[in-house]
Amino acid sequence: MTSDKNSVIALELESEDALTPAQEAYFAKCEEKLGFVPNVLKAYAFNPVKLQAFADMYNDLMLGPSGLSKLEREMIAVVVSSVNSCYYCLVAHGAAVRRLSGDPELGEQMVMNYRAAALSARHRAMLDFAQALTSSPQAIDGGDRQALRDVGFSERDIWDIAAVVGFFNMSNRIAAASDMRPNDDYHAMARDAKPS
Amino acid sequence: MTSDKNSVIALELESEDALTPAQEAYFAKCEEKLGFVPNVLKAYAFNPVKLQAFADMYNDLMLGPSGLSKLEREMIAVVVSSVNSCYYCLVAHGAAVRRLSGDPELGEQMVMNYRAAALSARHRAMLDFAQALTSSPQAIDGGDRQALRDVGFSERDIWDIAAVVGFFNMSNRIAAASDMRPNDDYHAMARDAKPS
Amino acid sequence: MTSDKNSVIALELESEDALTPAQEAYFAKCEEKLGFVPNVLKAYAFNPVKLQAFADMYNDLMLGPSGLSKLEREMIAVVVSSVNSCYYCLVAHGAAVRRLSGDPELGEQMVMNYRAAALSARHRAMLDFAQALTSSPQAIDGGDRQALRDVGFSERDIWDIAAVVGFFNMSNRIAAASDMRPNDDYHAMARDAKPS
Amino acid sequence: MTSDKNSVIALELESEDALTPAQEAYFAKCEEKLGFVPNVLKAYAFNPVKLQAFADMYNDLMLGPSGLSKLEREMIAVVVSSVNSCYYCLVAHGAAVRRLSGDPELGEQMVMNYRAAALSARHRAMLDFAQALTSSPQAIDGGDRQALRDVGFSERDIWDIAAVVGFFNMSNRIAAASDMRPNDDYHAMARDAKPS
Amino acid sequence: MTSDKNSVIALELESEDALTPAQEAYFAKCEEKLGFVPNVLKAYAFNPVKLQAFADMYNDLMLGPSGLSKLEREMIAVVVSSVNSCYYCLVAHGAAVRRLSGDPELGEQMVMNYRAAALSARHRAMLDFAQALTSSPQAIDGGDRQALRDVGFSERDIWDIAAVVGFFNMSNRIAAASDMRPNDDYHAMARDAKPS
Amino acid sequence: MTSDKNSVIALELESEDALTPAQEAYFAKCEEKLGFVPNVLKAYAFNPVKLQAFADMYNDLMLGPSGLSKLEREMIAVVVSSVNSCYYCLVAHGAAVRRLSGDPELGEQMVMNYRAAALSARHRAMLDFAQALTSSPQAIDGGDRQALRDVGFSERDIWDIAAVVGFFNMSNRIAAASDMRPNDDYHAMARDAKPS
Repeated sequence: MTSDKNSVIALELESEDALTPAQEAYFAKCEEKLGFVPNVLKAYAFNPVKLQAFADMYNDLMLGPSGLSKLEREMIAVVVSSVNSCYYCLVAHGAAVRRLSGDPELGEQMVMNYRAAALSARHRAMLDFAQALTSSPQAIDGGDRQALRDVGFSERDIWDIAAVVGFFNMSNRIAAASDMRPNDDYHAMARDAKPS
Repeated sequence: MTSDKNSVIALELESEDALTPAQEAYFAKCEEKLGFVPNVLKAYAFNPVKLQAFADMYNDLMLGPSGLSKLEREMIAVVVSSVNSCYYCLVAHGAAVRRLSGDPELGEQMVMNYRAAALSARHRAMLDFAQALTSSPQAIDGGDRQALRDVGFSERDIWDIAAVVGFFNMSNRIAAASDMRPNDDYHAMARDAKPS
Repeated sequence: MTSDKNSVIALELESEDALTPAQEAYFAKCEEKLGFVPNVLKAYAFNPVKLQAFADMYNDLMLGPSGLSKLEREMIAVVVSSVNSCYYCLVAHGAAVRRLSGDPELGEQMVMNYRAAALSARHRAMLDFAQALTSSPQAIDGGDRQALRDVGFSERDIWDIAAVVGFFNMSNRIAAASDMRPNDDYHAMARDAKPS
Repeated sequence: MTSDKNSVIALELESEDALTPAQEAYFAKCEEKLGFVPNVLKAYAFNPVKLQAFADMYNDLMLGPSGLSKLEREMIAVVVSSVNSCYYCLVAHGAAVRRLSGDPELGEQMVMNYRAAALSARHRAMLDFAQALTSSPQAIDGGDRQALRDVGFSERDIWDIAAVVGFFNMSNRIAAASDMRPNDDYHAMARDAKPS
Repeated sequence: MTSDKNSVIALELESEDALTPAQEAYFAKCEEKLGFVPNVLKAYAFNPVKLQAFADMYNDLMLGPSGLSKLEREMIAVVVSSVNSCYYCLVAHGAAVRRLSGDPELGEQMVMNYRAAALSARHRAMLDFAQALTSSPQAIDGGDRQALRDVGFSERDIWDIAAVVGFFNMSNRIAAASDMRPNDDYHAMARDAKPS
Repeated sequence: MTSDKNSVIALELESEDALTPAQEAYFAKCEEKLGFVPNVLKAYAFNPVKLQAFADMYNDLMLGPSGLSKLEREMIAVVVSSVNSCYYCLVAHGAAVRRLSGDPELGEQMVMNYRAAALSARHRAMLDFAQALTSSPQAIDGGDRQALRDVGFSERDIWDIAAVVGFFNMSNRIAAASDMRPNDDYHAMARDAKPS
């Protein structure tokens, strides 16, 4: 891929440097596995240093070792993006919830109103925390952390929940500010999967 | 420094791995230049992979090449943190505004209400955008981007503003969720500097 | 259909009277044309008088003569329901937007953030009004009505926009108060249609 | 009454059809019993189908069989309208609370701040639910329904509370969008009644 | 009057000192002219120093020399109290608007939604400023002051508007915190006056 | 001091009368003790009657007999001003908290987010009440008053908390409306004091 004029966002960013070979390989792997390069990566590709920093943080947070399952991390991502009404992230990560859960309805619920889902106490507490930390970070206190411990989350889990909430509060704003467009491919993805 | 039990946040995170030599060197350099290691770095030090991802993104955004001056980036950081009432970031980055501007009053204004400062049209537009993107990301549209172009910001500048706004919306939430405590050293820093 | 104990909402309402023959026929026609009776009708079926009043108003508003197309009315329905995060209405009317437009992405945009759609000036004004009338009815004034006239809406069109906005502000609250569950059938509906 | 150019709202709606004889009789009965036809009915009179749907729903909800007294339904109407600052509904239904209760002060309290009234536990719970369902429908959950059951409301009562809350969230928006003017007659009505 | 146990608020404040002779005379004059002592004065009477400070400020602001008429000051008082839903102040100052204007409907409009009144450009600007300064004081800037100058308000008038807005933002909170009850006499006052 | 054209606010108010000898003496005493006359007093000096009413109320509330310490009253002042983002009051009263507490960090915490401070139960309840009464006065009820009694506040203390909260909700709005500038002297004041 050559990252010439960037058409996935409403800012006309010129490519500032070539992708590294590892980045080229990463993009090729996306094409191979997903059938496309997610537009957020194309958006960052004008600057390989920024792309690398973004991808390193994303990959550690969403795919790295954690007491939270990958599905739980995606559920948090969608609930944060729902509070912020972020079109890009709702499309891309709503699809991820459908795919990872095999439950298209769960994806819709995370997008539309997580309180409508039949959630375990663990997931309800996790998403209530994500919602509160997104809407009113200044009011979070020890009681909120304790509510997570009470349903079994470890100290490290709480850090990870906070880090995912934080990350999508960042991404939602970069997407909003740049009018980032999601790949068309997400819309039809995992629509007819059935929950196991 | 050994990152054993982490006492700068309200989560008890055990060290998961040793810092890399480069990270040890970075911490040593902080001690030498600032007199202390910023607590946000100590907070992340339980996991060197997470620390690296955070530091890489931070250093590129706040210190790397940009059409925004370092002071402008710090002004944005403080205004975002003011909307979110983030104690850690207001203390640490309020000090940075005082130091970089040589104008302690400007630091206070960014913390308390940026509209009280005598700002250039460029800075007023930049901070109005930061405030709006933080409070109501879902309502940002082409008019908001145009208002930045109208005062001379380039496409890349707009990306950078968005990226700094996004980054501090992330950091504010990680600090809030973990009750991150700022280093005492910040409070007295650059209090008597005079604007040039 | 016999409306015995009502299982589509979280209230246990006993049937108070038999459906009228016309209502039985209407439900049968739903089964035939849609493959199911929408759960909102089942919810109201405990009381045929209430069912009739609801259906009469709904059918006139959404299907009766108007300067607004059926798709436009459904777009308004979804945007109102998005402001109120109403799971039932987002599922049912999001499907209607996909079906009537042949554009699944448009349905997602109405659900997630209508500002992300590439809208005509007419539709942007219509949905901005719907959003404002839902969020801040007390602040609507002559300027808001004029903005609709300026893009070509007639006086009657403005009444109809207001009436649809009003109706879904009602339905959203009845659905929220009763935890109304949408029919499963909506989720997969019109997902792969293509815009004409 | 002839429903020629409609002067009770800020939209110039031409009469689209003659009132039915039953509607003419209903208007005559209003004149006889109240001394005037409520302007909301005049507003809808441009279209007899819409008038009928509105009146059918209104009459069932506010006057039909229910575990809620007529006064309780009017109290809910006013509290919803107070959250939405709807001038038309506050004037018309504030008068109804004064008349039905014989307590002018109660009418004022519903308009101004229901929390200032000396309410029974039943009424406080009912109005807290009405306020919450109006302000934050997306956050209503099982706990809110249980709070109503705890003070003695039946399942059907909860439906009726929700339906009245919903109806006035609709009417408030139609009134706001059309700048509906209340009849002058309401202002002096039942001002000197005394509570029994 | 002896200010023994204070029954007009929900705090049991013991009298701390006797009223001064001038205060006794002032209360007697209230009885003579109004037929009662306003409960806000009884509430403050537990401490003659506090009563004096309150009355001095009130009398200067609401009755002293100003480019704003007494009616205009009362209109501002009611609009501020409407934003804050202050029962005491809406009752007492709503009555004052009715009395001073001879227009009971204007009193209701200030209580319910000032935007529903047919206001001059001067009054609309004045009340828009009062509403904004009450709801979002942090966002007031030079443009808001200029909007007042544009409809003819002097610099001193702007100060007076701000001072009345400020005063009722204070009083509303003292009334809310103490559950201050208005005198019954206000309710029927000036209900049938007619506009001149 | 002669109060000619007033340059501490964005309104050009002409002096309307000479200060009284007592006021001249008070200003001289400020110069002597503080090194300057606080700008809020200069702002009011265009009218000696208004200055007197303001100073009388301020001096009684903030310096007069009360169960609240002077530091507690200043803490409330700053928390209210933080909710309202009032630059003038945050600068002036933030300095007062630093000076009275000998704890510069406490001053910063009151400005930035009082929940970040290590507060006694008494102070946390006091400031939670101040925050709630400022943000949502209409929702205060008996439970809020009881929470203050539960940590040992007397009825009179509750009145005093409410009065200080009210006073700064007034002052914040007068400062915002007039763009009041704080004296430069406050910024460096009590920055290096140490907690006792």
